[in-house]
Amino acid sequence: GALKMAQEMYRKGKDDKAVRLFEHALALSPRFPEVLLRYGEFLEHRQRNIVLADQYYHQALIINPTNLEALTNCQRTADVVQNLDRRRLKSLDFKSNVLSTIHESNAALRRAKKEAYFQHIYHSVGIEGNSLTLAQTRSILKTRMAVDGKSIDEHNEILGMDLAMKYINAILVQKLEITIKDILELHRRVLGHVDPIEGGEFRRNQVYVGGHIPPGPGDLSLLMQRFLRWVNSDHSSSLHPVNYAALAHYKLVHIHPFIDGNGRTSRLLMNTLLMRAGYPPVIIPKQQRSKYYHFLKFANKGDIRPFMRFIADCTEKTLDLYLWAI
Amino acid sequence: GALKMAQEMYRKGKDDKAVRLFEHALALSPRFPEVLLRYGEFLEHRQRNIVLADQYYHQALIINPTNLEALTNCQRTADVVQNLDRRRLKSLDFKSNVLSTIHESNAALRRAKKEAYFQHIYHSVGIEGNSLTLAQTRSILKTRMAVDGKSIDEHNEILGMDLAMKYINAILVQKLEITIKDILELHRRVLGHVDPIEGGEFRRNQVYVGGHIPPGPGDLSLLMQRFLRWVNSDHSSSLHPVNYAALAHYKLVHIHPFIDGNGRTSRLLMNTLLMRAGYPPVIIPKQQRSKYYHFLKFANKGDIRPFMRFIADCTEKTLDLYLWAI
Ligand SMILES: Nc1ncnc2c1ncn2[C@@H]1O[C@H](COP(=O)(O)OP(=O)(O)OP(=O)(O)O)[C@@H](O)[C@H]1O
Ligand SMILES: Nc1ncnc2c1ncn2[C@@H]1O[C@H](COP(=O)(O)OP(=O)(O)OP(=O)(O)O)[C@@H](O)[C@H]1O
Ligand SMILES: [Mg+2]
Ligand SMILES: [Mg+2]
Repeated sequence: GALKMAQEMYRKGKDDKAVRLFEHALALSPRFPEVLLRYGEFLEHRQRNIVLADQYYHQALIINPTNLEALTNCQRTADVVQNLDRRRLKSLDFKSNVLSTIHESNAALRRAKKEAYFQHIYHSVGIEGNSLTLAQTRSILKTRMAVDGKSIDEHNEILGMDLAMKYINAILVQKLEITIKDILELHRRVLGHVDPIEGGEFRRNQVYVGGHIPPGPGDLSLLMQRFLRWVNSDHSSSLHPVNYAALAHYKLVHIHPFIDGNGRTSRLLMNTLLMRAGYPPVIIPKQQRSKYYHFLKFANKGDIRPFMRFIADCTEKTLDLYLWAI
Repeated sequence: GALKMAQEMYRKGKDDKAVRLFEHALALSPRFPEVLLRYGEFLEHRQRNIVLADQYYHQALIINPTNLEALTNCQRTADVVQNLDRRRLKSLDFKSNVLSTIHESNAALRRAKKEAYFQHIYHSVGIEGNSLTLAQTRSILKTRMAVDGKSIDEHNEILGMDLAMKYINAILVQKLEITIKDILELHRRVLGHVDPIEGGEFRRNQVYVGGHIPPGPGDLSLLMQRFLRWVNSDHSSSLHPVNYAALAHYKLVHIHPFIDGNGRTSRLLMNTLLMRAGYPPVIIPKQQRSKYYHFLKFANKGDIRPFMRFIADCTEKTLDLYLWAI
């Protein structure tokens, strides 16, 4: 049906139509290797989008690990893609290094940092649905006064992010080893203003998030211990900081140890690790929410690389925010 | 000087002038037994205010425990005063019993209870300086929306009292034994919205309150254990509930185990004990703040009875609030 017509269009050079038909076929049978492989080849050969092509081959391989075609396709693209990713991260390092050459007394940098501080909080609570504007967020943090017509919870979400960021800046970035206690203290600050009972405590119930079923409450203690062994391992610290931070975020949100505030706490942990490596805290814009959720889902299916690329994108945009301001 | 003139006026029957001169003499030398004794006798014999007279004799005895005159005066008044206090408490029991005969489905009673709930929270945070009005307090609890022009802390103080009251109603009033954990959980709710770090934790620093120097942080654990042994003892439960509750309040605020929120937590513990005995939670009106502080200071000096009488007064006024509404 759709797949056949897509290939027909591909052969005829009608690329736009082909894309639409491939997408349609994919929507109809998302777990059908054939569609993924054909669409991938179209993307690789005609559109020169080797990263996305590789993603589809990979997906086909996850669905059927013995599919020979998927295997050979992946072997062909994997190295190229890995190199592209590396080059990408190198350019991030470059931008980060440029930024670090600017003395912290620089007035423009300081202003940019302050502005980014508010934006970071604004977007991290906004992604969850907080309706306070950037200007209101700034005013709340500067005056500690309430904004008319907004819920007290929304105010407290802002205060929680601020308290947590202060804890990170004062204590966590200096720490060479992160402990379970550190994560709990982070969460206590994130959620405590809104919910003094659950802030700083692991959940005691099963939860569900966007199609993902996190582990049961009885497994949390062990999984968190294992997670922190990984965070503090030589292996993980040898990764590129952006990949390391993105992975830590993913792993924590996968465990989902809290009844609420998992996203915010995981993003803050990610930013702690980035800041420890000299990067600014990355902003995930609230407008990117569905992408963000999509890539997390994708990681659950077995491919974490699109999520890492997404974090790299956000990191680059955050770096640009600073670089353009100075 | 002033004392001699006061007695001169007393003899001449110029009572108003005498009172003013006695007060003046007392202000000049508050720790001088002679003034206390003469003023006491004037109050006892001329003004028939035996309770206040006894209070002054008692004070003189605290200053000088071997003062024979103070001792004989006290012996004369103590029994009378004790009887008056008892009668007073009996009349409170009577009012409380009348109230308990009204079925809880009674619409007027339910309305009165709801209104008293808001007033209780309003006054308990108001006594500390919270500037939210009763109407704003009600609106915050009903809508969870912020009020324009007020600090976020003030909102969170209201939410904290509400969370604590819900905990008391759902859990604490049913408990036969109160534990340290219960007090900490109460405090976590009272203070946690405003301060997620200190809520539910004993203080780690020395504090000072209205001339009183509470015990050092190192002694808190032991003193709290002893306090809760007393709360749960047969002796304390054999006291009249109003005296028992007032004493518990005083003892807790004397230890002052928290960095902030001691007054609110102590008042809530007092109300837990009152509610356990079938009394409504007593409201200490914010307008009575200086009296309240005065009687606590008085208790520190050695006489707890004026504070217990003050709580009895407030209890009666709270009972009237219900009785007049039904
Ligand atoms: N399919 C998924 N698998 C794993 N994690 C997910 C998935 N979808 C969303 N998440 C994560 O779960 C978070 C939401 O969980 P939770 O409500 O506990 O966090 P939050 O901090 O309150 O919300 P938010 O992160 O939206 O601000 C998201 O932010 C995201 O990081
Ligand atoms: N001289 C005193 N001795 C003992 N306790 C006192 C004295 N003066 C005041 N207090 C108590 O200390 C409380 C104030 O302490 P703290 O600030 O920790 O409590 P709070 O709950 O924040 O304030 P508040 O009780 O005023 O609402 C007062 O409410 C009162 O109960
Ligand atoms: Mg949430
Ligand atoms: Mg206080």
